[in-house]
Amino acid sequence: MSELIGKLTKLLGDKGILLGSDVRLRDNGWGHPEPCEASAILRPKTTEEVSAALGLCNDAGHPVVPQGGMTGLVGAAIPAPGEIALSLERMSEIEEIDTATRTMTVQAGVPLQAIQQRAYEEGFLFPLDLGARGSCTIGGNVATNAGGNRVIRYGMTRDMVLGVEAVLADGTVLSSMTKVLKNNAGYDLKQLFIGSEGTLGIVTRIVLRLRQSPRSHNAAMVAVDSFDDVTRLLTIVDGGLGGNLSAFEVMWEDFYRLTTSEPAKSRPPLEYGHPFYVLVEALGSDQESDSERFESVLGEAMEQGLFEDAVVAKSRAERDTLWEIRDDIEQLDRNAPIFTFDVSLPIPDMPDYLAGIRQALGGRWDSPSMVVFGHLGDGNLHVVVGVGDASSRPDVEEIIYRPLQACGGSIAAEHGIGTEKRPYLGYSRSAAEIGVMRTLKSALDPNGILNPGKVLSADSEAMAH
Amino acid sequence: MSELIGKLTKLLGDKGILLGSDVRLRDNGWGHPEPCEASAILRPKTTEEVSAALGLCNDAGHPVVPQGGMTGLVGAAIPAPGEIALSLERMSEIEEIDTATRTMTVQAGVPLQAIQQRAYEEGFLFPLDLGARGSCTIGGNVATNAGGNRVIRYGMTRDMVLGVEAVLADGTVLSSMTKVLKNNAGYDLKQLFIGSEGTLGIVTRIVLRLRQSPRSHNAAMVAVDSFDDVTRLLTIVDGGLGGNLSAFEVMWEDFYRLTTSEPAKSRPPLEYGHPFYVLVEALGSDQESDSERFESVLGEAMEQGLFEDAVVAKSRAERDTLWEIRDDIEQLDRNAPIFTFDVSLPIPDMPDYLAGIRQALGGRWDSPSMVVFGHLGDGNLHVVVGVGDASSRPDVEEIIYRPLQACGGSIAAEHGIGTEKRPYLGYSRSAAEIGVMRTLKSALDPNGILNPGKVLSADSEAMAH
Repeated sequence: MSELIGKLTKLLGDKGILLGSDVRLRDNGWGHPEPCEASAILRPKTTEEVSAALGLCNDAGHPVVPQGGMTGLVGAAIPAPGEIALSLERMSEIEEIDTATRTMTVQAGVPLQAIQQRAYEEGFLFPLDLGARGSCTIGGNVATNAGGNRVIRYGMTRDMVLGVEAVLADGTVLSSMTKVLKNNAGYDLKQLFIGSEGTLGIVTRIVLRLRQSPRSHNAAMVAVDSFDDVTRLLTIVDGGLGGNLSAFEVMWEDFYRLTTSEPAKSRPPLEYGHPFYVLVEALGSDQESDSERFESVLGEAMEQGLFEDAVVAKSRAERDTLWEIRDDIEQLDRNAPIFTFDVSLPIPDMPDYLAGIRQALGGRWDSPSMVVFGHLGDGNLHVVVGVGDASSRPDVEEIIYRPLQACGGSIAAEHGIGTEKRPYLGYSRSAAEIGVMRTLKSALDPNGILNPGKVLSADSEAMAH
Repeated sequence: MSELIGKLTKLLGDKGILLGSDVRLRDNGWGHPEPCEASAILRPKTTEEVSAALGLCNDAGHPVVPQGGMTGLVGAAIPAPGEIALSLERMSEIEEIDTATRTMTVQAGVPLQAIQQRAYEEGFLFPLDLGARGSCTIGGNVATNAGGNRVIRYGMTRDMVLGVEAVLADGTVLSSMTKVLKNNAGYDLKQLFIGSEGTLGIVTRIVLRLRQSPRSHNAAMVAVDSFDDVTRLLTIVDGGLGGNLSAFEVMWEDFYRLTTSEPAKSRPPLEYGHPFYVLVEALGSDQESDSERFESVLGEAMEQGLFEDAVVAKSRAERDTLWEIRDDIEQLDRNAPIFTFDVSLPIPDMPDYLAGIRQALGGRWDSPSMVVFGHLGDGNLHVVVGVGDASSRPDVEEIIYRPLQACGGSIAAEHGIGTEKRPYLGYSRSAAEIGVMRTLKSALDPNGILNPGKVLSADSEAMAH
């Protein structure tokens, strides 16, 4: 071990490696204030350094845990004691913005917000957006296939990536940094690294696809009285707004009350008393005519009796006010201790699913809290549960995850598996699927040094069909 | 061999297997009228039969070539003499259309056009569209990641597939038939089978994502005098039409002359004499206001001097007339014998690329023909070359493919590799990339029975960097 550390220090230099107390000064990221217990944190500056460092660790059979902005919610970037962490924090350069091909070439350690900002300055949109934008890095977004607020229009991170450079466990540099949209020349290898949480390779550089910057923004919040009407509203706005619908976010009333009442900053733009509050957003190309269309589509929905009360944002400030209600997830902590879940399932199955878990929670604990919101247009719900004590997590997890198996849902819509959801992978994946995941892992990382124990665990197949 | 055929006959029944002269009555698909030389054509009716058949072939180490509608252009579905073909033609059922989740569940052998039609009847759009729509099957579309006319708006087949069921070489059934849009529960295994041309598994069933049916259609053809103006026009219509731009097809003048002159059916809607003719299409949600917007965006481009002459379709019939000019690729045969290429490259590199190959062809042959058209919005060009004899193919291929290496282009934008482009894979992929492709192939098909020799050949790395 000390021999390996010696070689890595020689390779990366003093700035390129943290040891001892310097490691312990770091925590394990959001929600994990405990000190990092890695034996070292590597901070390579180039792909070549990542390659050489992985080669050394692979020869020594020593585990390596890749790290981005440490904002993940499932523990995928937390090293076990003695493992070596590899942070991309010094690979934080935007290498090129190519306006002709509408691409941006970046190193993995660039924060998402810096990419959004740079795209904006050049007249483009990089559509990925999530609450952690200021801290998360694009490498982490790619490794976890991050989703966020605009998936209904622009897809997930996977859909915004044209090229990837990744380093395999043995140090092989796999550079697929293409700028072309269409490339059927052999297997699409970048897919291996997108969403596999650093277990198949370490992403070092990325070619991102940029979009035209929208020239119009429209948003409204609508109070809806039944789930059926919520789904009808989705159909109407999706059809009526054509390709412009960019968000369809639903807040169940409990959530809406939390984020519009003291000590939250926001006040309710619509009266309480409705079971659902929907935030609809459209991005288009002409403010005047798009606003007309937006209001006319909402008017059509109102005429059909889908809602009685709505507020349409008339300015950027008013739009931001509506989004703040959706984004103020800190208010959820008022029910602490809480457990936060990220599931997806077919929209028609949602009412029964939620009623079932509400009943199960109520049957087991006195007055549990259950707050629901999500990217409904994508079939993605966030369910936040409080039962009064933090030690009940496994019991609550079982209640949340088990019913997803029957309806073909996912235990991880956008947050990934990491270590936290590992025991439940079999509820969303068959034994055959998990077997093929193991085959891929063995083929690409035969010594098992890359983020070992993440995504897959010894008994992942246990609950699979 | 006869033992294997005996077992397969017992498994699949008389209807499930073609032998001897029944095999020889079939050809090898589009452009390949020669009789099929497979030792048998299997016609399984279920995933279970595919699984059992592959298990038998794998045990015997016998090659199996999956077949869809036989409309591919690179030879990926043509069996070598003695290989066993496996056609999905009897798995042709649309199993379910689920309007609530906006998905369609289909067997691999359903023709694309049947899927488009069924979606349309239910008020949805399945946006994949290509000339072979009547004959090609969705399984083949998935296996080749087909592109087509609307990639700029809706992406390629990969972007329209939510779930896949595939059978591995050893008969393992890998069923990932999810209907949810977001699923980060472990590796996204379906990506392995999309675009890998049947070398990693045989796709048997698919869950397709449907879109809202558009309520407005607008199209125009524009004559443009410089390539710079073509790219400026793309920027203007993409920005101005917001999410509604669905096609940006460019015809170089040679192509336009071919498809608008005798014996072609179409007549030129715009005068000859311009180097580029662009077909612009938008799909939206309201005919009246979308038409206004469409004409105003084109007006803006005209004011900027990007073109002097345009024709805007005022009816469905007029739209169809414009598309017929783009789609009448049979006219290309007037220069027969011809070689057809499908490449992608960064748009700014196109003029130099085309000038370079034109010069190289002219330096080698007397008055060669070179006709160019393509999905320019996607960076995808089709280049059709005639040099007077059919035996010069390898020399022409070298001229077309080699320059793509320097500009990061792809030798196969949408048609795939098959056997035809195998020797040139190294121009678009590095030795490391091809090495990982081999690793995947060995891991998933250790006996090498699935479509052997397709995509990868013994010397694929030869020309790679």
